[in-house]
Amino acid sequence: MEVIVQKYGGTAVETVEKVQKIANGIIQRKKEGYSIVVVVSAMGKTTNRLIELANSVSAKPDKRELDMLMATGEQVSVSILSMVLKEKGYESISLTGFQAGIKTEGTHTKNKIIEIDIERIKNYLEEGKIVVVAGFQGINGEGDITTLGRGGSDTTAIALAAKLKCPCEIYTDVDGIYGVDPRLYPNAKKLDTICFEEMMEMSSLGAKVLETRSVEIGYRYNVPIYVASSHMDKKGTYIKEFDKQMEQKVITGLTISDDILMVTINHIPYSPENISNIFSSLSDREVNIDMISQTSPNNNRVNISFTTSKENETVVDEALNEQVKKISGIKVKKDSDVSKLSVVGMGMRNESGVASKMFKLFAENDIYFKLVTTSEISISYTINASDKQKAINAISKTFNL
Amino acid sequence: MEVIVQKYGGTAVETVEKVQKIANGIIQRKKEGYSIVVVVSAMGKTTNRLIELANSVSAKPDKRELDMLMATGEQVSVSILSMVLKEKGYESISLTGFQAGIKTEGTHTKNKIIEIDIERIKNYLEEGKIVVVAGFQGINGEGDITTLGRGGSDTTAIALAAKLKCPCEIYTDVDGIYGVDPRLYPNAKKLDTICFEEMMEMSSLGAKVLETRSVEIGYRYNVPIYVASSHMDKKGTYIKEFDKQMEQKVITGLTISDDILMVTINHIPYSPENISNIFSSLSDREVNIDMISQTSPNNNRVNISFTTSKENETVVDEALNEQVKKISGIKVKKDSDVSKLSVVGMGMRNESGVASKMFKLFAENDIYFKLVTTSEISISYTINASDKQKAINAISKTFNL
Repeated sequence: MEVIVQKYGGTAVETVEKVQKIANGIIQRKKEGYSIVVVVSAMGKTTNRLIELANSVSAKPDKRELDMLMATGEQVSVSILSMVLKEKGYESISLTGFQAGIKTEGTHTKNKIIEIDIERIKNYLEEGKIVVVAGFQGINGEGDITTLGRGGSDTTAIALAAKLKCPCEIYTDVDGIYGVDPRLYPNAKKLDTICFEEMMEMSSLGAKVLETRSVEIGYRYNVPIYVASSHMDKKGTYIKEFDKQMEQKVITGLTISDDILMVTINHIPYSPENISNIFSSLSDREVNIDMISQTSPNNNRVNISFTTSKENETVVDEALNEQVKKISGIKVKKDSDVSKLSVVGMGMRNESGVASKMFKLFAENDIYFKLVTTSEISISYTINASDKQKAINAISKTFNL
Repeated sequence: MEVIVQKYGGTAVETVEKVQKIANGIIQRKKEGYSIVVVVSAMGKTTNRLIELANSVSAKPDKRELDMLMATGEQVSVSILSMVLKEKGYESISLTGFQAGIKTEGTHTKNKIIEIDIERIKNYLEEGKIVVVAGFQGINGEGDITTLGRGGSDTTAIALAAKLKCPCEIYTDVDGIYGVDPRLYPNAKKLDTICFEEMMEMSSLGAKVLETRSVEIGYRYNVPIYVASSHMDKKGTYIKEFDKQMEQKVITGLTISDDILMVTINHIPYSPENISNIFSSLSDREVNIDMISQTSPNNNRVNISFTTSKENETVVDEALNEQVKKISGIKVKKDSDVSKLSVVGMGMRNESGVASKMFKLFAENDIYFKLVTTSEISISYTINASDKQKAINAISKTFNL
């Protein structure tokens, strides 16, 4: 029994007509002889509408109840898709998250899958049924309905594929993974394949096709993932294990984040306590720090810059005003007119010249960068927002993205 | 810990504003010191909208999937009500049917509750939480989500009260139980109390306030039921165990069914086989027979009349046309211009003169009745629809309904 897990996003099941259309795609696969598990999101904007309903009764709706409410969205879409499949003459059965054995833990609205009891799904597959599973949801140890947060249905699909030891097909609004977002660089090339490590790095650096944790599950359990358009009219992109035979590009992808606040603190009296206090006051307020850069002390004073999401600006102000009072002489500067630009590629592991090529490119194009951080397979730069397009064009052209 | 189960119908939770209003009523009871379980239906016309959605993909939607779909309606309303209660500062928790331990069996869309595992609810009540339970739904032995059919939320509420050994309050569109429907007799009197037996008889004879099976559960487990308007502005009606101290009315209630087809088959050659064949051909087509009346054979021929719901007319024709071909000489007459009128009262058990009082009343008012059937506490008559109002007025006035 060869199994495939397919996932269809909210846009693909937005209307009854669209559900009919994806049903035909599912049936096609079934006719090819596969056993099929389908994971679907809520129809269209249903989740947003449910959140609006919750907001109409509470400014800060209780999260346990919000999960209870949001989970109805996928329950509607699985039952409708299963009805359509049956109407077309195919045995099918819909399952909610808890019925599919998806056990989760964590904070409501942001749960993580900890285990899947796959028996029920396996039995239905053996009976020849197409199994339609509600994405984005599960049940926790207390028996409460939970949801998985952003990209939750992808996580459901890839985790099911991991448990069933089979490939996973993600049908979505975009037709694959591009080296650079085509909206930013119209000549962007679609990748035939990308390895898990690069995809994880790109996701965590801001490429929005898949959430990092979904790709992580694929990586950890070696689930081949195929990302393609739900119209199924073009070839998509395979995400799979790194393979020396893969085309060795130095840089596979370029990602951009615009939602960046860069903060620089100058003249910090050089002591580990001061630095620690500054970052503790931020983490106490749940401010996630992205890039950090510190220069060597000069006259026993250091300068530190970091970036965070713009939405944290108010709490960052609060934390740093506190520190300004405590640490004499420090000065805080903020810049929200910046972008983060990251290049990703497995090739960087072996090729040492990437950083220097990039510096040269920036120099040639008169682009001033502010912060630089590196990981094993990526380099990220903070640049002025006004230089963004120029940088994208130069890098995409040079590295053939 | 004194517990109360309250049930609110779809109209009472139609809008967010209405949910706010019933929340205040619930909190009032909580402040009086009660532990509270609230059962709610889906908001307004949600269930109808979900059924329409299902009908848009299938002329005859799969019933297992329809249950999956419909169950989302109550899941939305319980989460919203629980959010509202929390927003008002009261600890609350919502539960779906399966979370509330409601186990069912039977045909999908018409399941019956077979057992309730009440532990989870009890624990929450002990923690001081208001427990909000989705009505109308449960889970069967296969782990599939099920629904309970018409009046299912009442059944959920009364069954929970039976298990918790506490009273049940049903808040609905009407403000109590009337001896006769006030739309038919404007002077109709609301009953302060009615016993289970009378209420069951009235429900099964067509009074639409509660389904017979809900009252049956109340009767079997002796759950006092209070039926009142969800506006809570008027005193409602208590349904409880028969008690000799209750005001001994001969007739407690009068019910009318207009949806009646009366069929008469004349000149049937007198043999058990013929009668049996006729009714078998009807039951094979799932035609529910209500009243049956047969007169003594004359010249070895008998006449039989029966009533059924008008919606069965086509299949009745089909069945009887078949019989006309098989049994020589029989003649079929149909009359759909009739009403069924039933009087109900525990007093009939002891008082033998009710039938004769009724006959006298019909004679005085020149009302011709066609069929008569009796049970221990009721008598039903088929009359011409044109005589309906006259009969209602005469009976209601005479018996002070």
